[in-house]
Amino acid sequence: MNASSNARPAGRPSGRAADQLRTVSLQPGAARHAEGSCLIRMGNTEVLCTASVEGKVPPFLRGQGQGWVTAEYGMLPRATHTRGDREAARGKQSGRTQEIQRLIGRSLRAVTDLKAMGEMSVILDCDVLSADGGTRCASITGAWVALHLAFRHCMKMNVIGTMPLKDQVAAVSCGIWQGTPVLDLDYAEDSKAETDANFVMTGRGGIVEVQGTAEGEPFSEAELIGLLGLARQGTAELFRQQRTACGLG
Amino acid sequence: MNASSNARPAGRPSGRAADQLRTVSLQPGAARHAEGSCLIRMGNTEVLCTASVEGKVPPFLRGQGQGWVTAEYGMLPRATHTRGDREAARGKQSGRTQEIQRLIGRSLRAVTDLKAMGEMSVILDCDVLSADGGTRCASITGAWVALHLAFRHCMKMNVIGTMPLKDQVAAVSCGIWQGTPVLDLDYAEDSKAETDANFVMTGRGGIVEVQGTAEGEPFSEAELIGLLGLARQGTAELFRQQRTACGLG
Amino acid sequence: MNASSNARPAGRPSGRAADQLRTVSLQPGAARHAEGSCLIRMGNTEVLCTASVEGKVPPFLRGQGQGWVTAEYGMLPRATHTRGDREAARGKQSGRTQEIQRLIGRSLRAVTDLKAMGEMSVILDCDVLSADGGTRCASITGAWVALHLAFRHCMKMNVIGTMPLKDQVAAVSCGIWQGTPVLDLDYAEDSKAETDANFVMTGRGGIVEVQGTAEGEPFSEAELIGLLGLARQGTAELFRQQRTACGLG
Amino acid sequence: MNASSNARPAGRPSGRAADQLRTVSLQPGAARHAEGSCLIRMGNTEVLCTASVEGKVPPFLRGQGQGWVTAEYGMLPRATHTRGDREAARGKQSGRTQEIQRLIGRSLRAVTDLKAMGEMSVILDCDVLSADGGTRCASITGAWVALHLAFRHCMKMNVIGTMPLKDQVAAVSCGIWQGTPVLDLDYAEDSKAETDANFVMTGRGGIVEVQGTAEGEPFSEAELIGLLGLARQGTAELFRQQRTACGLG
Amino acid sequence: MNASSNARPAGRPSGRAADQLRTVSLQPGAARHAEGSCLIRMGNTEVLCTASVEGKVPPFLRGQGQGWVTAEYGMLPRATHTRGDREAARGKQSGRTQEIQRLIGRSLRAVTDLKAMGEMSVILDCDVLSADGGTRCASITGAWVALHLAFRHCMKMNVIGTMPLKDQVAAVSCGIWQGTPVLDLDYAEDSKAETDANFVMTGRGGIVEVQGTAEGEPFSEAELIGLLGLARQGTAELFRQQRTACGLG
Amino acid sequence: MNASSNARPAGRPSGRAADQLRTVSLQPGAARHAEGSCLIRMGNTEVLCTASVEGKVPPFLRGQGQGWVTAEYGMLPRATHTRGDREAARGKQSGRTQEIQRLIGRSLRAVTDLKAMGEMSVILDCDVLSADGGTRCASITGAWVALHLAFRHCMKMNVIGTMPLKDQVAAVSCGIWQGTPVLDLDYAEDSKAETDANFVMTGRGGIVEVQGTAEGEPFSEAELIGLLGLARQGTAELFRQQRTACGLG
Repeated sequence: MNASSNARPAGRPSGRAADQLRTVSLQPGAARHAEGSCLIRMGNTEVLCTASVEGKVPPFLRGQGQGWVTAEYGMLPRATHTRGDREAARGKQSGRTQEIQRLIGRSLRAVTDLKAMGEMSVILDCDVLSADGGTRCASITGAWVALHLAFRHCMKMNVIGTMPLKDQVAAVSCGIWQGTPVLDLDYAEDSKAETDANFVMTGRGGIVEVQGTAEGEPFSEAELIGLLGLARQGTAELFRQQRTACGLG
Repeated sequence: MNASSNARPAGRPSGRAADQLRTVSLQPGAARHAEGSCLIRMGNTEVLCTASVEGKVPPFLRGQGQGWVTAEYGMLPRATHTRGDREAARGKQSGRTQEIQRLIGRSLRAVTDLKAMGEMSVILDCDVLSADGGTRCASITGAWVALHLAFRHCMKMNVIGTMPLKDQVAAVSCGIWQGTPVLDLDYAEDSKAETDANFVMTGRGGIVEVQGTAEGEPFSEAELIGLLGLARQGTAELFRQQRTACGLG
Repeated sequence: MNASSNARPAGRPSGRAADQLRTVSLQPGAARHAEGSCLIRMGNTEVLCTASVEGKVPPFLRGQGQGWVTAEYGMLPRATHTRGDREAARGKQSGRTQEIQRLIGRSLRAVTDLKAMGEMSVILDCDVLSADGGTRCASITGAWVALHLAFRHCMKMNVIGTMPLKDQVAAVSCGIWQGTPVLDLDYAEDSKAETDANFVMTGRGGIVEVQGTAEGEPFSEAELIGLLGLARQGTAELFRQQRTACGLG
Repeated sequence: MNASSNARPAGRPSGRAADQLRTVSLQPGAARHAEGSCLIRMGNTEVLCTASVEGKVPPFLRGQGQGWVTAEYGMLPRATHTRGDREAARGKQSGRTQEIQRLIGRSLRAVTDLKAMGEMSVILDCDVLSADGGTRCASITGAWVALHLAFRHCMKMNVIGTMPLKDQVAAVSCGIWQGTPVLDLDYAEDSKAETDANFVMTGRGGIVEVQGTAEGEPFSEAELIGLLGLARQGTAELFRQQRTACGLG
Repeated sequence: MNASSNARPAGRPSGRAADQLRTVSLQPGAARHAEGSCLIRMGNTEVLCTASVEGKVPPFLRGQGQGWVTAEYGMLPRATHTRGDREAARGKQSGRTQEIQRLIGRSLRAVTDLKAMGEMSVILDCDVLSADGGTRCASITGAWVALHLAFRHCMKMNVIGTMPLKDQVAAVSCGIWQGTPVLDLDYAEDSKAETDANFVMTGRGGIVEVQGTAEGEPFSEAELIGLLGLARQGTAELFRQQRTACGLG
Repeated sequence: MNASSNARPAGRPSGRAADQLRTVSLQPGAARHAEGSCLIRMGNTEVLCTASVEGKVPPFLRGQGQGWVTAEYGMLPRATHTRGDREAARGKQSGRTQEIQRLIGRSLRAVTDLKAMGEMSVILDCDVLSADGGTRCASITGAWVALHLAFRHCMKMNVIGTMPLKDQVAAVSCGIWQGTPVLDLDYAEDSKAETDANFVMTGRGGIVEVQGTAEGEPFSEAELIGLLGLARQGTAELFRQQRTACGLG
């Protein structure tokens, strides 16, 4: 996938083939203190994902014998070309931040057997150290590794008996660039694409979440299906790298 | 559409056919003071949409000779079965609220020629008086009517020369109920559906936004396409009613 | 009252006689989900009042065997001529909002036997859909109907044994218009009146709260008494309409 | 007034006659830096009032050639029997605080010729050092002295040409204690009184604001008039002391 | 100390000798309701310190059989030459305020045997009524008196058996004025000094906290030692006055 | 310095000699987008420092022809052993955070010629990726490198003519461990040290800031001087590494 492919070249700004991912790297254990962690790089996008285990659940779940997985997302002020406000200094998280962290949480819960966790929580912190497009998708892909490692840690500590993850989950953004669907938009591509769609998919090929937005002209059903095909191809590679990072066959 | 159809009945909780919308009504001019307004009812969901015109644009657009359309969303505390916190009293809008109002704004901008507006803004307020599922979709559908009426008011006042709306936009939620795609989920259906997808579509058949979420099992490409087909059918009826509400052919 | 009267006409902006209320309507049960509700219209002022029952009391009352009644007040952003900020978006309620909701709560508690409620709370939400003066008074009058209906619901459910409402309560604003006391100011009158006074009165003729403010020149004792007389006349009509709305003799 | 009177003793907790004020003292110039200031003591209630002059008006008044007078109110955390939260630490002012500071501002504006001020503002800060009932009334009475001194300072500096104060304003609370109207409630009396009413009056005998609240049983017109009479008597003494504090005949 | 000394005069703005404190006064019991209180004046700086006893500890200390001492700091808006924002109105405490209140709390805990307190808390409120430099140091010195008196009150009430204060603590600021170390900077001196250092010291001569900041040029070890010597001299006098205020030998 | 020294070993938890720094590394240019950046590691403490240049100054400096340098500090939630709250989610920065960022800003301004900058600002963001004690000191040391690089960038761009940095600045914490002064505390040492002192020093040997706090027993002048000596030794090594990181002789 990362090598060139036989797809018709799109003349994308990045020079990549239409179905070519950026260089991906997943570094497990990147955070010293967390029960599970992963530093994911997708090209120049870099997100530190940590999984923190807590021995309790939120009030609305107490006494129900099940666990909870949630996420928080942040971006260092100078992760971007021009410095952004520090949300802690401004005193609130933006709508975009909240939207992203809700998506990450939902995506990871979709592949987690909450009953198998017992009454404990895992908080996934996804902090963007460097941003070049696709930070929400990279967060999901990296958070799965952090979560997997945290659950393995809990199993080793005999806190849980079986792995609560039922499947892998990964995400990638696709877009329409000058009429052609292309995979894994970087920032320069994203800001000029006609349509931007994020796909969250499972290892077994199901769709967990699809969010497609026409930036300019509305898109068609055929285009949506084209984007979905690219996402399927891209996440296949991400699933392979997740397994490698976790030392799974 | 509102009459029974020949689709195979899904045994949905609402007793509606799989491709049957709830009773829809669009009441233009429902708010005395607003430049444009519409009270939309989709079954027991009821949203008051107002369009307020302001003679300036946000700072990031100043001096660029174009306009802006944005939205705010709220829900009366007792619009729901059990009373929700008043966001003004809690001191912040929830992530869900922000996500919805960003979606409404994006959807309406997708069919607006911002250049044709000149330097003015329209704020769309969508306030849910009664909630029974599908409030964000109803907000988009009703807000289009409010926006259309507000622009007509501006044309009558000679503030703008041509109608900046390039197309209609409407939205509907679909879901998978016991394996069958069904149209226009009410609250009871939504809380039990396996998948919930919101489609924002244009009068000419394009997709402006798709947001599909697997609540339980991931969904497949075929299911996504099935849901899209229902949405196309449902929005066709909504477009017809929008035109009637605005007195358009 | 609503018909013309033999009071000397004041030449008020509204054309009403000095002692003439606006057209009043009280629509019980206007909110589908609430235990009690009432949509009150006083001319073009329109407030949706809901009563929500909760099976607990605030911390400062726990274990004392008594109940609590409190109120929250809000205004849709475009209830007014020019759009107001959404308080939820600004992140706090204005001083005016807090002042009004404290007044509504106090007024309803004044006619409620909190002991007879047992340890439960009722939250009265008064949301202004359309504003044309007198919204705090309309809120009190409408909230009494919502509260009465909610208590009746609790009695039917055998949650409480006797009706905790000891009396009716209603409110009306009066003012001095070009030297003459007039009843039930609308927005145009209120903004030009020399004095504005809100009277909260009980069905048996007692005063629960009086708030009189000189907008221009201070007022005299005689003027205060004149305004009180009008308020007594106006609330008499409101009490009659409250009883009708609740199906009371 | 401060000496005993021939009113029928009410057996009030304070042992004072029904129409007897607490010991009053007004210390002008109590704050070193302020343009005008006054430390007012009413019995054990102690409020430091300062008037700060600023050479600009709020945005809504700019360019209209008139001034503005506004107020802020606060209470030291241990001004009361049990320590209250520090509002700055909690991050917001209570509804009570906002209600009081709005009342103080309105009351002082009622006797100020804003046009005569030109485009400048005076901010009145009323900070309660010790609380024993009647802090809002003491604030108004003391703030008038601070404002008068600040205006005199501005006249001496040739910033304004004529004294913008048209009249004196002072306030006192009255209540019904075991069926008898009594003047100037202290905390112990206030917490047990049946009715509590604050009267803001002018030197020429007009009423600027009346706020009467039934704490238990509603009150009657006759009682309201009785309370007003006491207030007139009490403010007469306060006006005398204000003039002395300002060195006026 | 307060009389002139034989130190070489520094030509300080205040005209004081280099090692001369401002006039100090400590008025115990200045707040009617607090368990302990002290109004401290250092020249024109005036801080009201109150100690409020609460029968519980913060959550992180529960069940550990020890007490807690903490502090809050505030400044009246017009304590200063030009009016400052009211922190309660702005909705948050400044970084400076938080820094100061953390310092006050740490300083007092340094001389308190928390075990000897049992599970109770003392909150020290230090509110600046008039500011002329050195408010954080005056707060510490005055708070010690308030805390001592509060503990004595608790001993009299048999809430605690022995005095938990192990030593005295007091603070003073020193600075370098035109090359010469000087004691107890007032505002005019502080704003022009090259270096500003606050020393918190104990009755037995130990250092609890030192905070030295170069405002202009960095300072040397010799200068730091010179400032420390002055602080030792200044706090000796403050310790004497604390003992007098508390009626200790 | 990093090699063993001939100081008497203190038996410190880290096994280091009393005067031994942790392994230090300064990685310039660690952030892709910032005008200057440095990733500093002191043992397991890791802070990403970025310098962002903006072409304007804060309002209080406008039109004075000088620049400004300020700092913000943050910590990733899982930089620590147990996860801390995300300050952006909580809605405010802690007192500790504000205290630290004020210190960083002051320290860097102490060696900057603000006049030489012209009207521009540099914001230093110091974000702790991994925390093991000494994060505020590491932030200052790393921020100097980021600032130096940013100024060099501005010189290359001809935005400024001369290097505004007058000197180097670096910081290190020292403490008293079982009676012996030791250099560069890690978290385990810091939490048990009797005294903790942070020294901010300049390349020419001056003291910019000293903050010493007795955690248990007060400390003496001799101990303060001992700590200062260690700090001088430690910062000498840090200055050497800063120069290397910046490619300075």
